[in-house]
Amino acid sequence: MLPIVPTLSLREKSGLVSGASFWMTRGLEEHDITPVTLTDGPHGVRMQRAEADSLGLNDSEPATCFPTAASTGSSWDPVLLSRLGKALGVEARTRGVDILLGPGVNIKRSPLCGRNFEYFSEDPLLSGVLGAAWVRGLQAEGVGASVKHFAANNQETDRMRVSVEVDERTLREIYLPAFERIVRDARPATIMCSYNKINGVYASQNRWLLTNVLRDEWGFDGYVVSDWGAVVDPVSAIAAGLDLEMPSTGDHSPDQIAAAVESGALEEGVLDRAVTRILTTHDRVRQARQPSALNQDDHHALAREIAAAGSVLLANDGDLLPLDPDRGGRIAVVGEFARTPRYQGAGSSHIVPTRLDTALSALTMATTRDVQFAAGFLLDGSEDTDLRDEAAELAANSEVVILFLGLPDAVESEGFDRQDLLLPRNQRDLYASLQAANSNVIVVLSNGAVVSLEGIRDTAPAILEMWLAGQASGSAAADILFGTVEPGGRLAETIPIELAHTPAFVNWPGEQGEVRYGEGIAVGYRWYDITRRDVAYPFGFGLGYTTFNYSDLHVVLPDPTHPHAVVTVDVKNSGARAGSEVVQLYVGEEHATAVRPPRELRAFEKIWLEPGETRTLIFELDERAFARWGEGTWTVAPGTYDIAVGRNSRDLPLSESILLLTPEPIVVLGTDSTVGDWLKHPIGAPLLHDIFSSIAGGGGLPSDSETLRMIEEIPLRTMLGFGGAGDGTEVVAQLLAKVSG
Amino acid sequence: MLPIVPTLSLREKSGLVSGASFWMTRGLEEHDITPVTLTDGPHGVRMQRAEADSLGLNDSEPATCFPTAASTGSSWDPVLLSRLGKALGVEARTRGVDILLGPGVNIKRSPLCGRNFEYFSEDPLLSGVLGAAWVRGLQAEGVGASVKHFAANNQETDRMRVSVEVDERTLREIYLPAFERIVRDARPATIMCSYNKINGVYASQNRWLLTNVLRDEWGFDGYVVSDWGAVVDPVSAIAAGLDLEMPSTGDHSPDQIAAAVESGALEEGVLDRAVTRILTTHDRVRQARQPSALNQDDHHALAREIAAAGSVLLANDGDLLPLDPDRGGRIAVVGEFARTPRYQGAGSSHIVPTRLDTALSALTMATTRDVQFAAGFLLDGSEDTDLRDEAAELAANSEVVILFLGLPDAVESEGFDRQDLLLPRNQRDLYASLQAANSNVIVVLSNGAVVSLEGIRDTAPAILEMWLAGQASGSAAADILFGTVEPGGRLAETIPIELAHTPAFVNWPGEQGEVRYGEGIAVGYRWYDITRRDVAYPFGFGLGYTTFNYSDLHVVLPDPTHPHAVVTVDVKNSGARAGSEVVQLYVGEEHATAVRPPRELRAFEKIWLEPGETRTLIFELDERAFARWGEGTWTVAPGTYDIAVGRNSRDLPLSESILLLTPEPIVVLGTDSTVGDWLKHPIGAPLLHDIFSSIAGGGGLPSDSETLRMIEEIPLRTMLGFGGAGDGTEVVAQLLAKVSG
Repeated sequence: MLPIVPTLSLREKSGLVSGASFWMTRGLEEHDITPVTLTDGPHGVRMQRAEADSLGLNDSEPATCFPTAASTGSSWDPVLLSRLGKALGVEARTRGVDILLGPGVNIKRSPLCGRNFEYFSEDPLLSGVLGAAWVRGLQAEGVGASVKHFAANNQETDRMRVSVEVDERTLREIYLPAFERIVRDARPATIMCSYNKINGVYASQNRWLLTNVLRDEWGFDGYVVSDWGAVVDPVSAIAAGLDLEMPSTGDHSPDQIAAAVESGALEEGVLDRAVTRILTTHDRVRQARQPSALNQDDHHALAREIAAAGSVLLANDGDLLPLDPDRGGRIAVVGEFARTPRYQGAGSSHIVPTRLDTALSALTMATTRDVQFAAGFLLDGSEDTDLRDEAAELAANSEVVILFLGLPDAVESEGFDRQDLLLPRNQRDLYASLQAANSNVIVVLSNGAVVSLEGIRDTAPAILEMWLAGQASGSAAADILFGTVEPGGRLAETIPIELAHTPAFVNWPGEQGEVRYGEGIAVGYRWYDITRRDVAYPFGFGLGYTTFNYSDLHVVLPDPTHPHAVVTVDVKNSGARAGSEVVQLYVGEEHATAVRPPRELRAFEKIWLEPGETRTLIFELDERAFARWGEGTWTVAPGTYDIAVGRNSRDLPLSESILLLTPEPIVVLGTDSTVGDWLKHPIGAPLLHDIFSSIAGGGGLPSDSETLRMIEEIPLRTMLGFGGAGDGTEVVAQLLAKVSG
Repeated sequence: MLPIVPTLSLREKSGLVSGASFWMTRGLEEHDITPVTLTDGPHGVRMQRAEADSLGLNDSEPATCFPTAASTGSSWDPVLLSRLGKALGVEARTRGVDILLGPGVNIKRSPLCGRNFEYFSEDPLLSGVLGAAWVRGLQAEGVGASVKHFAANNQETDRMRVSVEVDERTLREIYLPAFERIVRDARPATIMCSYNKINGVYASQNRWLLTNVLRDEWGFDGYVVSDWGAVVDPVSAIAAGLDLEMPSTGDHSPDQIAAAVESGALEEGVLDRAVTRILTTHDRVRQARQPSALNQDDHHALAREIAAAGSVLLANDGDLLPLDPDRGGRIAVVGEFARTPRYQGAGSSHIVPTRLDTALSALTMATTRDVQFAAGFLLDGSEDTDLRDEAAELAANSEVVILFLGLPDAVESEGFDRQDLLLPRNQRDLYASLQAANSNVIVVLSNGAVVSLEGIRDTAPAILEMWLAGQASGSAAADILFGTVEPGGRLAETIPIELAHTPAFVNWPGEQGEVRYGEGIAVGYRWYDITRRDVAYPFGFGLGYTTFNYSDLHVVLPDPTHPHAVVTVDVKNSGARAGSEVVQLYVGEEHATAVRPPRELRAFEKIWLEPGETRTLIFELDERAFARWGEGTWTVAPGTYDIAVGRNSRDLPLSESILLLTPEPIVVLGTDSTVGDWLKHPIGAPLLHDIFSSIAGGGGLPSDSETLRMIEEIPLRTMLGFGGAGDGTEVVAQLLAKVSG
């Protein structure tokens, strides 16, 4: 306990564990406790301009609007994420923000989730590595992170009530590891609990989650803050491990907590612990502060750099891109998004940008070629055939068309989920018209989560997915289209052929207050690989302006009984330009006894190579690279594991298998153990043979394999009780005593 | 209570609720209570020959081995099932059997389930209609049925312990309706509870299942018998609604039950009720008895008729079939199964047949053509290239090849599940050799659940799926191949392209004692349709030797507010032969608010038409044809429903839509209701507007649609508490009082 805590009154302490206002904690001047400010969000500092309205969504002070997590996730670049975190830290400090509410590391379970733009990936490793880098960068500036939303907050529909029905293995392997990695590697100041229930218990009141897993197992030493309004019962919440409720509920929560302590319903030590965690964490955050000056031009440049690094070139037939800025005919720039960019998502993360680059002006400035613009469609989704015809005519009279499509704000936001994966009909119709007029239609996309590209991907020679790429997205797009920079992104989420193919489709968004995570661990590419589905573009996919060769994969396994391997591989830039590549390593268990994906991302590294340059990459694989969750712990089954390296989850030119000789799990015998369990046990098996020789005529166990297979599934107590022999439980108890004796 | 019950001692009563031996109940001579015999099984009366061994699987008295449910399910013919039930009743009576343990109406959740051959279908309507017909036929002979396995017993792996984790909607729509239909329509004497747990509670101890649903809702008035060895705690079981434990546990269970009554842990009335149900049911069964004589030749002929009616002609390119028995060249009959038929499954349903027809002898006798045989492969799965080469040489020197493939006993049985969908490799290799030697390879299959036909279906001109078709399967196959009879079957289960496409694949067979039914209601064709998967052969598919035209679909909906429709359709035999057709009707809700299959089987009728004959079929659709389970009851949402009629689930030439004007479900407001819920409520909405006008500056509800959509998902109590306004619960309580006031 912090020395100051015993000097505080109950009333003072119960006040410290809930907010003073929408964005601030309470201070106690007489105790030298200063209030701190927490504010959104993950891709820009949203400092509210005026008194908060009831949702806290009023206009905010201008701040750099960096690319959203949909974009930064596609960068696969922890160094860049760390620089982003640092820049956000400087902006937060400048505005007096102590805790910045991010990063969002929830897994993209369905592409329909309205808040996917705030999350990195469908893969927990990628999410965790990027999130940890972001946190380290931010916190180095003396601003605390708030890793959110803990946990299993994967949809907006009914998000404040829905109970996520999910098994522990799925939580451990898919939904928790990003949080775990960030806690272990980056020591975040705070974790933000989510609104939803997990298996019937609100995250804000979930002791297993907030205490057993987060603190006892992972060693989290910061504090847990509620998502805004996530606390239903403040006493249950603090007892479960929540520390700070936000926003303020006036006197309501402090009253309840004080009353609970007074009545003995809540131990005062629990309250003291929460207060200690909050004050200690705030002290720790402040101690990291260094003088730093905000340079908005630098930050805009960083936003531009990140936007390019996260953009994914999906198609580039005949190397249509990059365009030559100084040679060639007219360029038609089509699409309202070229002059009215969609560059961030709606909701609590919404930023008023310091500047805003449009693609139209950036493209026009970047080239000596004739650039003409046509809006092509209306953002409200209504059809305007005049606009379409005008655009088609321009396309017919141009050498190349750059068409900016995407999702308008109205279909994609925090707070609600999308209904389908389609681009608005007026945009699809526009594409068809342009494509009929000009075969060189380059499609540039702005959207926060994947859209179906059916009808486009088979005909468009080039497709560039920018995601929601922040205030410099327009200039970043121009940079890529003209080849000033490399399209550095790789898909952090699979692009499926259609919605019905997606993992959560049959269980989305749940019914009657519950959503069943019926696909279990089969999320993202794991689903498409397990169920052997074709996809439009696989996880990890993305083109660059050069090519890379993979060679010389070597796996060193010093001790086959110990799941620790070192993998080396050579990657060469085999093209004529310098460029970046994301080298990806996947591991899969062959003949697993439980359902396992054929391959899971276990390591990656983004590299930059000059033409002809070769780099040898070294990846270390620890136990977790092979393990699955089972029987309440991580286990690595003995057997063959495939290690594959390459450029995306479905293009892995090199692979090697290793044989792990880890111990077979020991069968623990109990009252309900089957005949098969007994036969697998070193002491149990001979006892069982004795028993079978002494009963039923002394014939022993059946000798034919079919009958034996049948009885292997029968609990021994049942088997012994068959045929009027009475209850077998007592005999089993005697046998168990012999086994343990 | 039966008048005799009060005259029985506690000891006598507790003895009556568990078996006297493996197959018999206890009698009480002094009370004129005679013991009854219960025995397997669904496709033949398995009366044990000698003293039962510990599993009750010893040799049994010869009995007609009728086709298994895999075959009878494919007949889609309740009249035939009723005749089968009647024949089984006669055989049972002849052998002194009072209760015959069948039918098995579990849903085929995965094709891997080792016991699928004992179940009818992946569809609950088809399973229920056929099961009810079987029960009516059987019970008309004075033998009681035992509908099994109640419930959600869909795998053999860990079947005696596994907990099926399944939501209620899935139970109500998929796993329970066949039982429900049989209980309501056919009044079965007994229901057999399954081994497994359902959501953590053993079926044998599941009060919700055995009492609330089975008796209180459905009105079941027979008794519940345990699957053999399914009782873990006899006192909990009887308290939950189980009546008879089988087999005997000696004095063990009677002692425990008597002790529980004496201690007050179990009400004596519960025991009395079970005894009453058992004795009353036995009386009822006996009263139906009529003199009847067993004619084994007739039963063999019936077995032959059913086998043909359940066989599914999957392919018949160029009308290769039927073969002319009197013209043409040599017929090569290849495959060990032609002389060593696989015609039933292993396990408790195994029958010693009265006769056994082999396809080889039946084919030889049926034709004047030269018939030569080659075994081709070994049943143990080992490769024998001599056998294969010999068969290929025969094939090369024949006009046509009839190749008998299938699954050997060793890979398909009660008690364990299959590992894959493949035919054994030696059979696949044989097929490839024959196909290379002769393009006219007709494949005849014997297997209890679907096998993958990859590598065969693209090249074989004709494929006949016989399933496990009983002791006359060989002659039935000859009947079909030479066109003496029609291949009458239609698929009662989808044949997928590969295992990874199947509904339960990512959740099979569960881990750590639990199996999550993650696919929910998306079982069988529902899964392939919802997730838009290609299949090898769709549910309901099957060819005949003639063709049928569909016309004049009419849907009459007398009252749009009442979900009751009458559908008429004309079906004409447009070919040159008489033949049978299964006319199938599917219903689907458009734009459903919950996940629903595009279409579900809601009616069917098997018809026999002469060439040129037209039949007008009439189908009645009641509420359940449109309803889904939600909010604890069946509801029919208002909206458009598609009614489609045709020859299989993916070939429905006629369809019509109807608009149902059933009432919108009324929002029930409560403490956790969202702003959106309140806005939907006729009284709540104006109250909400008042509240919003009086707080937060009187601005009222947000006017822009995005913000409104965001707040619609927020519970009103949370919304009112935001921004330091305190807890909203009290305000909500006041509003709720106004709503209900």
